[in-house]
Amino acid sequence: MNSFNFYSPTEFVFGQDTENQSGSLVKKYGGSRVLVHYGSGSAVRSGLLGRVTDSLERAGLTYILLGGVQPNPRDTKIREGIAICKQENIDFILSVGGGSCIDSSKAIALGALYDGDFWDFYGTGKPVERALPIGTVLTIAAAGSEGSGASVVTKEDGMEKRDTGSDLLRPKFSVLNPALMFTLPAYQTACGATDIMAHVFERYFTTTPEVEVTDRLCEAILLTMIKETPRVIEDPCNYDARANIMWAGTVAHNDIVGVGRAQDWNSHGIEHELSGLYDCAHGAGLAVVMPAWMEYVMDTDVMRFAQVAVRVWGCEMDYAHPENTARAGIRAFRTFLHNIGMPINFAELGAKEEDIPLLVEKLGIGDGVRNGFRPLNAEDVTRIYQIAAHASL
Amino acid sequence: MNSFNFYSPTEFVFGQDTENQSGSLVKKYGGSRVLVHYGSGSAVRSGLLGRVTDSLERAGLTYILLGGVQPNPRDTKIREGIAICKQENIDFILSVGGGSCIDSSKAIALGALYDGDFWDFYGTGKPVERALPIGTVLTIAAAGSEGSGASVVTKEDGMEKRDTGSDLLRPKFSVLNPALMFTLPAYQTACGATDIMAHVFERYFTTTPEVEVTDRLCEAILLTMIKETPRVIEDPCNYDARANIMWAGTVAHNDIVGVGRAQDWNSHGIEHELSGLYDCAHGAGLAVVMPAWMEYVMDTDVMRFAQVAVRVWGCEMDYAHPENTARAGIRAFRTFLHNIGMPINFAELGAKEEDIPLLVEKLGIGDGVRNGFRPLNAEDVTRIYQIAAHASL
Repeated sequence: MNSFNFYSPTEFVFGQDTENQSGSLVKKYGGSRVLVHYGSGSAVRSGLLGRVTDSLERAGLTYILLGGVQPNPRDTKIREGIAICKQENIDFILSVGGGSCIDSSKAIALGALYDGDFWDFYGTGKPVERALPIGTVLTIAAAGSEGSGASVVTKEDGMEKRDTGSDLLRPKFSVLNPALMFTLPAYQTACGATDIMAHVFERYFTTTPEVEVTDRLCEAILLTMIKETPRVIEDPCNYDARANIMWAGTVAHNDIVGVGRAQDWNSHGIEHELSGLYDCAHGAGLAVVMPAWMEYVMDTDVMRFAQVAVRVWGCEMDYAHPENTARAGIRAFRTFLHNIGMPINFAELGAKEEDIPLLVEKLGIGDGVRNGFRPLNAEDVTRIYQIAAHASL
Repeated sequence: MNSFNFYSPTEFVFGQDTENQSGSLVKKYGGSRVLVHYGSGSAVRSGLLGRVTDSLERAGLTYILLGGVQPNPRDTKIREGIAICKQENIDFILSVGGGSCIDSSKAIALGALYDGDFWDFYGTGKPVERALPIGTVLTIAAAGSEGSGASVVTKEDGMEKRDTGSDLLRPKFSVLNPALMFTLPAYQTACGATDIMAHVFERYFTTTPEVEVTDRLCEAILLTMIKETPRVIEDPCNYDARANIMWAGTVAHNDIVGVGRAQDWNSHGIEHELSGLYDCAHGAGLAVVMPAWMEYVMDTDVMRFAQVAVRVWGCEMDYAHPENTARAGIRAFRTFLHNIGMPINFAELGAKEEDIPLLVEKLGIGDGVRNGFRPLNAEDVTRIYQIAAHASL
């Protein structure tokens, strides 16, 4: 196991009606002039936004609303938020939405206290030194942004998707009410589930030996998702199934299951070019990319793939031919994704094989490699996109 | 799943040589005049205490040493620590040791900022309102106190063992260096492992339905302990096995695997009277009590016991007679404890059957019941002690 620091100071407030605590929580963490940042109209229509602002009013707080965050959130909207924060002396951002909303709230939070362009921090490794405090009211279990310090946003000019991260961007609190997901369409629910499972797999496929505890914790999240996801697709208002997925989504990405081990984020990187170019859902892109990546890199450590096949997918171990077990596990994953309604190839996603050179170019590997479980050069990535293009059950 | 709040703001600094960061960590969290509170002479002999104080000196901090914490830590030593804090204007407590040391550091931390007797907070539910900040350098994976807000201490007069808890008592940071456990004798290693597993079981046996995610996370910790504990008993200097156990011990008790579900702490309560009366190791007492408790309460939810037997102990499911599977799981647990060198009955622990009435009386149930997975009255507890007294493989 590798050395590590783990720090997750977010207060998670989980359960029915917890959004009504938003006001007292903002106050507890020092907010007085609040930017309420939300995504789609559904937060308004469902009455959620009203309950949140009522709660802010009961706590005696001033607030300004900023709606209209899109999936794969854009820099233009973020710049609007930053301008409001500076103009109105905002001292707390309350993000009401999913990963796109929370990720762009984090971008606003760091941009509001920075004189230059917030984009300076994305894809550059430039360390964040200051940021406004943020809180979240989560509406979809997926990105894990409610418990992480990470943020991924898209630059409209060229549709480049880039990320940043800092402990300063970890939410002070996150309100998790599983019932807020009752109205979530099956497709978005499945996209979220895929993202959660991908967050675990990106940690699971490691070159670090002797990581039993985090292996087992990763497997725990995967087993939960395999059981609970079909239940919510079938029965969207199943509170307990939604609740199990919601906590799984947070634990999957606050890194408690991923510490002390090398991680591999190449599937996420390879996918980001798909959702950047086609504006498709990130989870749907992952459903196409991740099993393809697995097939391509499987030989790097067949026994690790066999382990997950047996422990998570319930495959029989083929002791004479572990590669068969490994392959059976990847097949089980792709079948699972198909069964919950996810695309499994380019055609189903709406991507085009002829764009592969462009996708590879945008990823910006050049003559180098992307490090990870298996280092990948431009040719490797091309082949992964090709496997993804043609995948079938 | 039940509603819950989860808040674990401790910074965990994990790996080789991390104790050399003690000084900078104390400084980061605002300490300037430090009480260094440590347990046995082994911290001195091993050179650990010297490395910690060197680190404090490098950070320019003033410190006072207070050693001699005993297992089942006593109020007299705690009062000594409180007096020093008040006299010397201590503003940070650095606890170098295991659970007993950290638990009594927490008692000192709350007592130092309280005008009355610190014992007012123990076993009474009186809320902690202020406490000095503490940090820890952990020397044994066991109690999980390095990541929790709980504290258990013993009153010498009558040897009463009582607890308190508050988020204010959560350490600001905890330094976890698995190599510090290389010199730990096999018996103490096994006691620690038993305590860790008990912390998980106390959460696992719940009356809350639909808690798949935390069930799976609990099982992950148990599976890790089953694999790694025999390895460190065999090979005490196996860094990776020690590391897996150390992180398992922290995750087992910071409650991320126990949120949203009713928990049962009766085995801990029943054990505390044993270690209170006989001054035996808490883990050893748990090894005697917990399987006995399981046998006694098994009928409350046979399928839950069958689930853990299959998923954790690898038993075959007897679909016609699930109670056989449940029993096989409990037997596997007791055999595991025996194999790592733990006592499994009163004789092996050094306890006496004729003391059972006294143990029950000290537990203070009276005519009431202790709530939990199965509510227990005085007669139930008597029978559990009797099973424990006579247990065999």
